[in-house]
Amino acid sequence: MFSERLEKQIEFIKEIDKLKSIKRQTLLINEDRQENDAEHSWHLAMLAFLLSEYSNEKIDVLKTIKMVLIHDIVEIDAGDTYCYDDEGYKTKADRETKAAERIFGILPEDQCAELKALWQEFEAMNTPESKFACVLDRLQPILLNYTKGGVSWKNHKVKRSQVEDRNQCTKNGSEELYEYIMSIISRAADKGMLEE
Amino acid sequence: MFSERLEKQIEFIKEIDKLKSIKRQTLLINEDRQENDAEHSWHLAMLAFLLSEYSNEKIDVLKTIKMVLIHDIVEIDAGDTYCYDDEGYKTKADRETKAAERIFGILPEDQCAELKALWQEFEAMNTPESKFACVLDRLQPILLNYTKGGVSWKNHKVKRSQVEDRNQCTKNGSEELYEYIMSIISRAADKGMLEE
Repeated sequence: MFSERLEKQIEFIKEIDKLKSIKRQTLLINEDRQENDAEHSWHLAMLAFLLSEYSNEKIDVLKTIKMVLIHDIVEIDAGDTYCYDDEGYKTKADRETKAAERIFGILPEDQCAELKALWQEFEAMNTPESKFACVLDRLQPILLNYTKGGVSWKNHKVKRSQVEDRNQCTKNGSEELYEYIMSIISRAADKGMLEE
Repeated sequence: MFSERLEKQIEFIKEIDKLKSIKRQTLLINEDRQENDAEHSWHLAMLAFLLSEYSNEKIDVLKTIKMVLIHDIVEIDAGDTYCYDDEGYKTKADRETKAAERIFGILPEDQCAELKALWQEFEAMNTPESKFACVLDRLQPILLNYTKGGVSWKNHKVKRSQVEDRNQCTKNGSEELYEYIMSIISRAADKGMLEE
């Protein structure tokens, strides 16, 4: 009765409901539970909306928002890999590529191609939008973690140098937010939230 | 050290983390817990991204996505009012207006004005973008509810006529998605998920 196109879109919309069950290592500020990928993606979209003025290069805000909305969907199959988990990172790309094929493959061909391209661009971090999206993806958990007293860093015995190294790339997306991130790391270290 | 503007934006970004704790009546498809407003807003943004072709009128997709991203932020103070709660609806507008003043007021003036205007437009449902946003806000919980066997409708003894009445407005935003919504309601009634 309805077009095959609409049925595929609805099937995808139901499938991605699973993103709400993929847990991250970050805790919420006002509740003692882990954040999930859907909440994180919403928060990043809000950051993209509100902070685009700080991008080093002019960006297409709609494209950036779309990118952060979909950037973690592959984790429905591949799971969340903690950013300081070196072992997990060895197989991450392979697991996520398979996930992208299956999940984006539910959509009509043109939308499958659009989402796959957005995700690949996000991962490659070589365009103004993906460089800025990367800044947001780094800044958001740092804000939550720092405001929460660094619980997640302490649980994983994360070193100051690890956080600094991981966030060097944010300089490519936003000089100003890079400085802001470095100032939070410095304050976190001063307060004993990070190991020296 | 950083601009007052950036500090206000960051304060707002931390404040809206609370949206992840505002529970809705809808249950997730694959997990037995209530959906929260942040997850719902992310899901609506994905619907806006993927289904804009079904809008009756041409819409600005970026504006529509921004609208659904922020449409429930007032519930941080005002709480979620269940759509079939007649008593709650009497005080809803007043509670939400106060909430909008406080929460959007954290932002720099220009962004406060933008978010407040987007929220008022969403509520008024009288532009192409807000009419379409309303369709998405109705369609998403219906998809979740129906796929979940109608648990939330059954819990609240919701009648078929109530759901049909509430969804008449979706015709203004999308004839095609209105037909789709009506077909789901009809299937839900046939399966005993709604009272006659």
